[in-house]
Amino acid sequence: MKPSYSLGLDFGTNSVRALVVDVSNGKEIATAVHNYTMGKKGIILSRNPNLARQHPAEYVKGAEMSIRKALAQAKKRVRGFQPEQIIGIGVDATASTPLPVDEYGKPLAFQKQFVKNPDAMAWLWKDHTAVNEAAEITDLARSVRPQYLAKCGGVYSSEWFFSKILHCIRTNPEIAEKAYMWVESVDWIPAMLTGMESPENLTVGVCSAGHKAMYNEQWGGYPDHEFLEQLHPRLAEFGSRMPSRVLTANRTVGGLTKAWAKKTGLREGTPVAVGVIDAHMGAVGAGVATGTLVKIIGTSTCDIAVSPSDYPLEDIPGMCGIVDGSVLPGHFGLEAGQSAVGDIFNWFVEYIRPDGKKGTHEALAKQAAVLKPGESGLLALDWNNGNRTVLVDQKLTGLLVGQTLYTAPAEIYRALVEATAFGALTIIKRIENYGVPVEHVVNCGGIAEKNAFVMQTYADVLGRPMKLSRSSQTCALGAAIAGAVVAGSKNGGYDSFTDAQAAMTGLKDKVYEPNQEAHAVYQQLYELYRTLHDAFGTEEWQGNPSKVMKELIRLRDQTRGQG
Amino acid sequence: MKPSYSLGLDFGTNSVRALVVDVSNGKEIATAVHNYTMGKKGIILSRNPNLARQHPAEYVKGAEMSIRKALAQAKKRVRGFQPEQIIGIGVDATASTPLPVDEYGKPLAFQKQFVKNPDAMAWLWKDHTAVNEAAEITDLARSVRPQYLAKCGGVYSSEWFFSKILHCIRTNPEIAEKAYMWVESVDWIPAMLTGMESPENLTVGVCSAGHKAMYNEQWGGYPDHEFLEQLHPRLAEFGSRMPSRVLTANRTVGGLTKAWAKKTGLREGTPVAVGVIDAHMGAVGAGVATGTLVKIIGTSTCDIAVSPSDYPLEDIPGMCGIVDGSVLPGHFGLEAGQSAVGDIFNWFVEYIRPDGKKGTHEALAKQAAVLKPGESGLLALDWNNGNRTVLVDQKLTGLLVGQTLYTAPAEIYRALVEATAFGALTIIKRIENYGVPVEHVVNCGGIAEKNAFVMQTYADVLGRPMKLSRSSQTCALGAAIAGAVVAGSKNGGYDSFTDAQAAMTGLKDKVYEPNQEAHAVYQQLYELYRTLHDAFGTEEWQGNPSKVMKELIRLRDQTRGQG
Repeated sequence: MKPSYSLGLDFGTNSVRALVVDVSNGKEIATAVHNYTMGKKGIILSRNPNLARQHPAEYVKGAEMSIRKALAQAKKRVRGFQPEQIIGIGVDATASTPLPVDEYGKPLAFQKQFVKNPDAMAWLWKDHTAVNEAAEITDLARSVRPQYLAKCGGVYSSEWFFSKILHCIRTNPEIAEKAYMWVESVDWIPAMLTGMESPENLTVGVCSAGHKAMYNEQWGGYPDHEFLEQLHPRLAEFGSRMPSRVLTANRTVGGLTKAWAKKTGLREGTPVAVGVIDAHMGAVGAGVATGTLVKIIGTSTCDIAVSPSDYPLEDIPGMCGIVDGSVLPGHFGLEAGQSAVGDIFNWFVEYIRPDGKKGTHEALAKQAAVLKPGESGLLALDWNNGNRTVLVDQKLTGLLVGQTLYTAPAEIYRALVEATAFGALTIIKRIENYGVPVEHVVNCGGIAEKNAFVMQTYADVLGRPMKLSRSSQTCALGAAIAGAVVAGSKNGGYDSFTDAQAAMTGLKDKVYEPNQEAHAVYQQLYELYRTLHDAFGTEEWQGNPSKVMKELIRLRDQTRGQG
Repeated sequence: MKPSYSLGLDFGTNSVRALVVDVSNGKEIATAVHNYTMGKKGIILSRNPNLARQHPAEYVKGAEMSIRKALAQAKKRVRGFQPEQIIGIGVDATASTPLPVDEYGKPLAFQKQFVKNPDAMAWLWKDHTAVNEAAEITDLARSVRPQYLAKCGGVYSSEWFFSKILHCIRTNPEIAEKAYMWVESVDWIPAMLTGMESPENLTVGVCSAGHKAMYNEQWGGYPDHEFLEQLHPRLAEFGSRMPSRVLTANRTVGGLTKAWAKKTGLREGTPVAVGVIDAHMGAVGAGVATGTLVKIIGTSTCDIAVSPSDYPLEDIPGMCGIVDGSVLPGHFGLEAGQSAVGDIFNWFVEYIRPDGKKGTHEALAKQAAVLKPGESGLLALDWNNGNRTVLVDQKLTGLLVGQTLYTAPAEIYRALVEATAFGALTIIKRIENYGVPVEHVVNCGGIAEKNAFVMQTYADVLGRPMKLSRSSQTCALGAAIAGAVVAGSKNGGYDSFTDAQAAMTGLKDKVYEPNQEAHAVYQQLYELYRTLHDAFGTEEWQGNPSKVMKELIRLRDQTRGQG
């Protein structure tokens, strides 16, 4: 019998990846990346540091190019490979990345007059232009629909669906008027592959709906008309057109269209799974399960855990979302995250460009790795892009304290890495405090794969082993797992995610073990981090932060033997 | 009649300057700089970021080389110039920069076994190794001799005479044992030029004694034996050998020795004035007077004001020193300062080396100058080298807040410049609050001369015109003024500093006028600076600093038109 394959499509911030996986053992037989071409690595920027957009034409071109390249590679690598052996397709994408569409579901950015208008494009997950609207939605929900907030950590984010739409309504009425509906990219892409008649008839994922658009069956789905109307009548109109088929990723959106089959060589009618947020698919590909937290560490992080749906779960303040079925059917999916991790290191390397021309990630990490915890006397907050979990506040910024006249770039680099580790620890502590056990931490994503210094720092700060997902492309692998599940066992796939994960996922041999001596120092530094975190991140904190500077000096001098 | 000239010798942190001045009009006919050669630009460093030393051999070599070069230049430039026309010599140097000497006044660092021992060298003003000893002295004085502290701002600094000696006693007993005495460089250099029999018989300046060694006629001179003995018996031994001739700079230490006359070509017996701290001489050269604050802005700043001795002056908390006669005879000299100003900008350019290879002072200042106040969203504390005035605390460090993922080097550069301006404003507010009027601000020093961006920022932050001293080398000019005064009117000089200043000092035409719109924004930013300043700089402050981040974002968005 010929082996069966599944195709995972992962639409990231800067590129799209196509992955062809052997469903019997998870072997990745072909992978191809298509980099986006517009703006700065696919991101349309402006003078406003909060703005980040993406042109949906990237998705069309990116899907075609990456699938064709991956299939060509599979043919080269596997003797006798036939595209027809691909039994299912899964899709993941960034979210919340909504785009305005016309009554046929066509993006406004495809219309000539809007082709260069950032407001007509997809509003990328990390776009923070809608901070004021997020506050407005949060305030209204707090007074009239507190249940809406309870599932998304108590604060509705500027990164999310309704904030962005409301900001567009308020600041660009022309686009808001021309838009018939707004659709998440992660839903628009499967629809693009399977054909779409009108936006109302879309099949969408509970993952993005639940995490980003306040969808919950407890209150009958999306936010109600009255609530949206109080924000803006136009928002309520959009709300009235929200699709009713909201499903988990073990369900199919439909079969691949003839046109896409022709463009790519795939079989027409190949089932395409419901789209899922990239990080959630990444967690699936990394083997997320009860007791296992998956950290996807890239430009930002997503921290994903699950908890069986049959046990009641308390609402957790500051968690981005708790949604039934968003990661694994039959489990609550918990999503937390840090708004910037690799992006902070990239900022330092690419915007500050330290150390003459020598300040590469590699050089800085090498120098930083030989420093001891506390030795630099520096401490940073990891808020250059706001704080997603546990503060859920985009109106926060970076902070660095402890600089002397001799502070070196590698010391700052280390402080920034440590800051993100302290942020990670804050998330784990919050999850555990609300009764969700974290027995294993499995890491994946570019930084987990490539940056041993960062991972060792995480192990030392967290005081836990940092395990690594076997796959280097867990998001695409997770999507491929969904592809195998929508194909079903009768077509060579699986009938459940659990079965598919058991066959298709695994861990690397390499584990980063915590150094207990370093961990002891980091426990002291974490106390100082928490002081700054609470002092600058909450309105409740009252006190005197001067001990932070004094303690950093004391730890520095002690580490250097000058105590 | 042939014109008379005076020679000013200015021993700075990195070099010594010799200046030949026409005493009739202040015209600077020759100037020569000799750069120190050891360590990093004359500063001996170690792994300990607090350590900064200087080898006294630099002073010997530096005096000879700079005088010879200056006289050669004068001969070239002024027809018929004869070294005998130099009627007096003044000396200034950094302080507190004490060095250990043997019973003949010879520096221990001149002995073979100690030639490379940093503890045997001069402990440069910015050496902060003695933080713990400074705290010890402060604590003891607070309980048994509060009057000692009242004249130096309430805290005895790690930068000062007794802290450094006590630190040496505690950490390097060998040097402490071999030392017969410790002498300020500013006193040792005039003694070197005029000959010295033993350290006890030195003539020393009230300026360094009063500002750095708790000398005050109110309590009969230096700190008493009992006080010093409680700190350490060895310190009391040194104390018992302190010289009794403590004079103002209108008095002479003696005449130039035959050996120095031979080395330099100057006339033997030329009167050498009592040595004065560089900044104080700089203030004299810049025309300091009642109502005029002189800011000497270089690696650090010194802010000098005077107040007539016949009016009582309240002790001012946080002022480094208030000493009768330290700047001008007949006036209290008030010394304040910032531990690092240019040093902070230099740190950013030389240690962080931002913007690839393009992050020069010139390039960064050019880019920073086009930004508007508040536009970057950044705010910094200027404490990379501690805070001299008004907190008098070396155990403080730098802080930067407001970073995003797009923060650029020039924005940080501007924030650092602004931070030093906020520090400057804090000093002026403190002086004025205690009844010393500041009607004019006259600036001098390398940064005042060269960096228009910094000076305009100061004008905008302070909301006052920033005037410039006519001379580019006010310290050396002040020393030359002292040289003219010790020569006296009967030898072609003057009988008072007032007369000499009237003839020899002046202002540049260029004045930096404040931009009132910028000043209005800076008033808001200064409130935020004061919040951070008080929160991190005092143990008394109680509150919640989160509004600092929020307000910076609000001001940023408002400035960028995204409010």
